[in-house]
Amino acid sequence: MMLKELREEVYRANMELPGRGLVVYTWGNVSGIDRAKGLVVIKPSGVEYEDLSPENLVVVDMDCRIVEGDMNPSSDTKTHVELYKTFAEIGGIVHTHSPHAVAWAQAGRDIPCYGTTHADYFYGSVPCTRNLTAHEVDEDYELNTGRVIAETFAERKLDPVAVPGVICHSHGPFTWGKNAAQAVYHAVVLEEVAKMAMYTVNIFAQAPEAPQYVKDKHYLRKHGPNAYYGQKN
Amino acid sequence: MMLKELREEVYRANMELPGRGLVVYTWGNVSGIDRAKGLVVIKPSGVEYEDLSPENLVVVDMDCRIVEGDMNPSSDTKTHVELYKTFAEIGGIVHTHSPHAVAWAQAGRDIPCYGTTHADYFYGSVPCTRNLTAHEVDEDYELNTGRVIAETFAERKLDPVAVPGVICHSHGPFTWGKNAAQAVYHAVVLEEVAKMAMYTVNIFAQAPEAPQYVKDKHYLRKHGPNAYYGQKN
Amino acid sequence: MMLKELREEVYRANMELPGRGLVVYTWGNVSGIDRAKGLVVIKPSGVEYEDLSPENLVVVDMDCRIVEGDMNPSSDTKTHVELYKTFAEIGGIVHTHSPHAVAWAQAGRDIPCYGTTHADYFYGSVPCTRNLTAHEVDEDYELNTGRVIAETFAERKLDPVAVPGVICHSHGPFTWGKNAAQAVYHAVVLEEVAKMAMYTVNIFAQAPEAPQYVKDKHYLRKHGPNAYYGQKN
Amino acid sequence: MMLKELREEVYRANMELPGRGLVVYTWGNVSGIDRAKGLVVIKPSGVEYEDLSPENLVVVDMDCRIVEGDMNPSSDTKTHVELYKTFAEIGGIVHTHSPHAVAWAQAGRDIPCYGTTHADYFYGSVPCTRNLTAHEVDEDYELNTGRVIAETFAERKLDPVAVPGVICHSHGPFTWGKNAAQAVYHAVVLEEVAKMAMYTVNIFAQAPEAPQYVKDKHYLRKHGPNAYYGQKN
Repeated sequence: MMLKELREEVYRANMELPGRGLVVYTWGNVSGIDRAKGLVVIKPSGVEYEDLSPENLVVVDMDCRIVEGDMNPSSDTKTHVELYKTFAEIGGIVHTHSPHAVAWAQAGRDIPCYGTTHADYFYGSVPCTRNLTAHEVDEDYELNTGRVIAETFAERKLDPVAVPGVICHSHGPFTWGKNAAQAVYHAVVLEEVAKMAMYTVNIFAQAPEAPQYVKDKHYLRKHGPNAYYGQKN
Repeated sequence: MMLKELREEVYRANMELPGRGLVVYTWGNVSGIDRAKGLVVIKPSGVEYEDLSPENLVVVDMDCRIVEGDMNPSSDTKTHVELYKTFAEIGGIVHTHSPHAVAWAQAGRDIPCYGTTHADYFYGSVPCTRNLTAHEVDEDYELNTGRVIAETFAERKLDPVAVPGVICHSHGPFTWGKNAAQAVYHAVVLEEVAKMAMYTVNIFAQAPEAPQYVKDKHYLRKHGPNAYYGQKN
Repeated sequence: MMLKELREEVYRANMELPGRGLVVYTWGNVSGIDRAKGLVVIKPSGVEYEDLSPENLVVVDMDCRIVEGDMNPSSDTKTHVELYKTFAEIGGIVHTHSPHAVAWAQAGRDIPCYGTTHADYFYGSVPCTRNLTAHEVDEDYELNTGRVIAETFAERKLDPVAVPGVICHSHGPFTWGKNAAQAVYHAVVLEEVAKMAMYTVNIFAQAPEAPQYVKDKHYLRKHGPNAYYGQKN
Repeated sequence: MMLKELREEVYRANMELPGRGLVVYTWGNVSGIDRAKGLVVIKPSGVEYEDLSPENLVVVDMDCRIVEGDMNPSSDTKTHVELYKTFAEIGGIVHTHSPHAVAWAQAGRDIPCYGTTHADYFYGSVPCTRNLTAHEVDEDYELNTGRVIAETFAERKLDPVAVPGVICHSHGPFTWGKNAAQAVYHAVVLEEVAKMAMYTVNIFAQAPEAPQYVKDKHYLRKHGPNAYYGQKN
């Protein structure tokens, strides 16, 4: 069996989704990529988390063909692969239907950066894509979901490392990271930030975003050459 | 003791309600039907879940007469039986007072299909019935609850397989499925979808529904001859 | 040690408050009364639930004098005793700061009967008292809290058996029942109903109450000579 | 190893944050001070709670220099030390990103005292600071966070014992107490009070604050020479 270590890593990341309360039933999936081999390990479609194992994950190539595995890969596989092709820096991807992130997606609104919790992980708003057109849905729904995310980042000149997630209009969140574990971390943060932002507008609908210099400070306190949060390793 | 397998199935489905956080005290009930025999197995009325067993479930016929069992069946039995008579395709029914679904019922509003989480399971809005009239309540409350659900589906030309649930005005949700287990699954989904919809209007009161072609796509991705979600068995 | 059985009962009822998620720290108390002896068993003030036992509960008489016990009784003791004097039918009382009931109390609003969950236990709105006056607070805060509850029920001609609870303006809920266990049951129901009512106004601020005949039907389905919910014992 | 007892106390207080549901990942920190020695024990930066021990806490002096410890102290250390310098009465400090307190901070609003739950612990509104200026953020973000808290209390003539917490605009809460354990207690109360206040404005946006004499009564029932809540020790 190939990619044993990546299978373990993607398995553990998938299992963290129900543990963190991010998924109901099978409403989520995690993948990881081996960039050297051009292979992606991803959750099989519709399988309960309690039935998941490193061995029943599916390996696909960059054309979404099954390379190893007896089951169908996640129905969102084409979205994952398109994101790996577009964002060369990322090593893991998560999709969930976590409720507060979904609510912002259903409202069709970017999640504004109201404070430092958000600013520590997402540099600026978490963008909401446009809705797909009828033609895009009909042609290839999952592939075009990946493409509209790519379009959103290109048009707004966003860096996928500084903004490690997106919400898809009428759908829900995708997050990513340097590996599957970090992608899950960002999925947890996104849900928490989406919840705090909803609470904020519940208290004061016209709440302004945090000042730009606060966004800069908090993001750069944790990221980049002058970061000073945490321990130097 | 008759219907041993169905008793087991309905027992397990009932016990999943508190496990999934859908009921407080005894505020819920599940039934299942044996179509060949024309018999329904249902929770006894007002019994705590911890005191429930496959053996103390009640068997009633299609006239709601007790066929086997020492206890009174659920006070909602006539509603269940009326739904089994009206919707020939269904094998299990659930009633709960799950809080977000109840809130939409108390608001007297259909739950709009704001996104794909909803569209994956309910094809279009989850309908809210009209209130019963004073005469209907007085005449036969539980029977007429079933009838007003049937009326709602008939008038709106809804397919109970494509829309496996309803909310009753000033009351709460009923869901159904091919068996008791799937009816519970739909009860969990309905509560989650009702929560996400409430969050959505909290963020943006005028949020539009998902485009019709997204509703079509997501529902048909999981249901019907061209479904491709999950594993072929 | 006197009132052994009542001590056990009041102890178990107190312990159910944290178990049901109704209290943080020591923010709640339960009492029970022995009508024949004119004695009330109540939680000691400020004691953590983990340190509670049947033996360290405090027994007071109808003048709030300690009859048995080494600790101070709950600071709300005078409120409890005043309610026992006013409402001859009740045998147990609960006070909590459960968050949704507190929110309605802080909003100074009755909790409207929006649906059957509410109607099954509270016949009509859960009333919110007026604020105490400065003089009433200064004179005897806890006694006058009991008196303003009594005043609310007298002025509105409410039956404390049909409406087994109240919310005190700027403060929080008191519930009661035939004994301490039922008073806790009503505290759980009140919090659930307060939550559903808040959700309802979040969805539709102008939601109307349930029709009067639905309120009648649901209350009388569970209570009074023609009740048919549950099992006949 | 120095300050063994204080290390134990600060360790237990830190571990209570995830136990009480106040923190996600590493989003919180607790410190305690030895006033006689002028030394502060604080959580190391970015360390997971499961990896924390009394031994790996960091000891700093009143100039924020590490006196004992191999790791970097919390990135918020300068804020803690500034608060210890300003508020001579306090012995422990907590910072979290608990979601409801953060929401009020992101809304830039004081948390009004709507009722007795709040009044029992915070005498008047929980103040929200102004945003730092770009210059203040650039110059020394964490130090100036402490200074703007001090400024808020000085300008409004607030007593840090009567108001044991604050929310920092676009950021989140700091609470304090006579020791680390009490600071955590106040962090729990603040989150609960922030939640109830959000619910209150959700029900009635124009809800008035509790009357001043109720605020006085409840605070003084628990604090000061005439307090009568709890047990005399």
